[in-house]
Amino acid sequence: MDITRVWEGLAEPDGGSIIYVIMDGVGGLSFPGRGGTALEVARTPNLDRLAGESSCGLLEMVGPGITPGSGPGHLALFGYDPLEHDLGRGVLSALGVDFDLQYGDVAARINFATVDNDGNVVDRRAGRIDTETNRVLCERLRDEITLEGDVELFIRTVSEHRAVLVLRGPGLEAALNDTDPQRTGVPPLDPHAADEGSEKAEGAIRSFLDQSRELLAGEDRANMVLLRGFEKYKPFPSLEERFKLSGLCIAEYPMYRGISRLLGMDILTPPSGIKASFEALESSWSSDHNFYFLHIKKTDSYGEDGDFDAKVGVIEEVDALIGKAVDLDPDVLVVTADHSTPALMKAHSWHPVPVMIRARLARVDRVERFDEVSCVNGTLGLRPGVHLIGLALANAGRLGKYGA
Amino acid sequence: MDITRVWEGLAEPDGGSIIYVIMDGVGGLSFPGRGGTALEVARTPNLDRLAGESSCGLLEMVGPGITPGSGPGHLALFGYDPLEHDLGRGVLSALGVDFDLQYGDVAARINFATVDNDGNVVDRRAGRIDTETNRVLCERLRDEITLEGDVELFIRTVSEHRAVLVLRGPGLEAALNDTDPQRTGVPPLDPHAADEGSEKAEGAIRSFLDQSRELLAGEDRANMVLLRGFEKYKPFPSLEERFKLSGLCIAEYPMYRGISRLLGMDILTPPSGIKASFEALESSWSSDHNFYFLHIKKTDSYGEDGDFDAKVGVIEEVDALIGKAVDLDPDVLVVTADHSTPALMKAHSWHPVPVMIRARLARVDRVERFDEVSCVNGTLGLRPGVHLIGLALANAGRLGKYGA
Repeated sequence: MDITRVWEGLAEPDGGSIIYVIMDGVGGLSFPGRGGTALEVARTPNLDRLAGESSCGLLEMVGPGITPGSGPGHLALFGYDPLEHDLGRGVLSALGVDFDLQYGDVAARINFATVDNDGNVVDRRAGRIDTETNRVLCERLRDEITLEGDVELFIRTVSEHRAVLVLRGPGLEAALNDTDPQRTGVPPLDPHAADEGSEKAEGAIRSFLDQSRELLAGEDRANMVLLRGFEKYKPFPSLEERFKLSGLCIAEYPMYRGISRLLGMDILTPPSGIKASFEALESSWSSDHNFYFLHIKKTDSYGEDGDFDAKVGVIEEVDALIGKAVDLDPDVLVVTADHSTPALMKAHSWHPVPVMIRARLARVDRVERFDEVSCVNGTLGLRPGVHLIGLALANAGRLGKYGA
Repeated sequence: MDITRVWEGLAEPDGGSIIYVIMDGVGGLSFPGRGGTALEVARTPNLDRLAGESSCGLLEMVGPGITPGSGPGHLALFGYDPLEHDLGRGVLSALGVDFDLQYGDVAARINFATVDNDGNVVDRRAGRIDTETNRVLCERLRDEITLEGDVELFIRTVSEHRAVLVLRGPGLEAALNDTDPQRTGVPPLDPHAADEGSEKAEGAIRSFLDQSRELLAGEDRANMVLLRGFEKYKPFPSLEERFKLSGLCIAEYPMYRGISRLLGMDILTPPSGIKASFEALESSWSSDHNFYFLHIKKTDSYGEDGDFDAKVGVIEEVDALIGKAVDLDPDVLVVTADHSTPALMKAHSWHPVPVMIRARLARVDRVERFDEVSCVNGTLGLRPGVHLIGLALANAGRLGKYGA
């Protein structure tokens, strides 16, 4: 039985407040010449003191050996098993550019690509055109393409060769194959509806592709578009419905606001920088919400860049600010990450992330440092990421007893 | 795949003996001013020596953040996943007063309640009448109420406002709603059968309620009964059938004998006190049984009372007696709990419980103290409670090899 459903049944409307401080990708590996992971090397007196007052442990976010994308990593943290709750690329991309998706919209990822005179794909990423070129092209497509009937079209730049397309209209379904052939030397695939309900979307997409081909014909590199990950935006069961949590999201980056919106959280005006994020937490702290999600992106960004020292710097910046969250005296304060992003790998990884839960009823262990190896000896042990919300709810006094 | 089914397939009829010493609710939290949990503070030279010779670890009984009732906690210890095996309140209550339930009986909880002149509930617990009053009222209902046809009625006092009702007769089913409206200012609900098979029970219950209302009409407080948790007593797969274990239960408190009876264990005449319980273990030790379940209640009771020092005292008492179990030289000796009951919380909690398995083939770790934090570093790790029986069986040489 899915343990998250058990929590749903036990969740109580009243109880304490929970803060999640998520340092995206903060987990790592020992870096050559630096003597440890970024968390080990960083001077973090405040996080370490917090560890000494907390239950510590490690979260394996999606599963052993599984490297989570940002979507699955966060879904797990919020108690949505990523192996059960599918968050497709189309919808994630649209949420990721702050597009105001509406239920029933069909979203897909666009890649600008290069085709030769025979129409065969020669570069699936159009030489990674720059984001500014992308904006100009998206604007042209937006201005020139018209779809027949009652289907509206939206196009938004993501970055480089990536954009996102949204269809809006009554009765759209998204059972369409990717047009990206996933290799070069062959033409893009035609979109085909796998069921009758998706034929309307197929027609709109065929029209979009025909017009795009013409409009882009004069381009050197981005003379075609490939589509991937068609997906209909359906309501997700909200944190309120599932766990009786009224959430507020504080995130600089749009994708995390998008996921939060998907789960029914309120979204704060994006702050600019880590200090501003913590200050936003302080100023928004009220009884209107009982679940606060503060997202810090740069630990992941510098990990992706392979910039170990910059990642250390971000961790130290968070350390200097974490007291602001502590001083709000939430019933439960959680510090963790959505996945590891070792600077050594310049990529997300499967390695578990350290976690600490500070709460009056947390069983304090002997861990005195907040890092990947010290947390091995914590009372939370090594456990799936999806466990976190249940532990947070319990520590907040928000779960009833199971059975007589 | 459910791992307990795998053990069923591998369980062998021959093998060693197993003793479970269950200190109910022994897990806890550090108590203000006492410098640790009850297990940490108690002087336990014998339990600690045992830990030094054992595999230690922690059991998360039902799941992360889940606070188990006594039923689910014990089911897990015996290898019955509490999320799969439902043990309802009606049956548990009847087992809890040592009522000799028979398969096919329908049980429900009774709450004595107060209704006003309009028949609306004003107190769902009848001012928590004392147990002696409860006994007098139950006797009156037993003596005066007659049901038509072939349905027998049994009524037993539990405590204060709580009692239990059992219907016995051919063809009874229990798909009936609670009559407890769960709030005041409204009348009790009528019982309605949700399926045809339950109509016979509905008729009997309606007759019981009508007669009860008349018989109690003159009472100040307990002038009505509310019914909850209708449940039919169905055979549970026994420990013998599942794991080829022939069990003996030594428990002072009726609920634990009830659960043991449900699982097909033999039940020893209840001993009086912890010393008598260990002596009963000694005197009943024989080849008639290969699985001994010794239950100690007072660790939980004092936890529920918030009496930290008394809980420490009980732990020290068990420590002084544990040698009796060791001296029997069982092949496997397990010491653990069914859940935590921190005196700080005066209630059951979700926190994992320490466990140790002493056996010739147990992999001994470096844990030298039997407590919640020391056991984090044990070779058993942190694992679901339902794992315990599999490890006990393996250590007793009672599980065959899996695969060629």
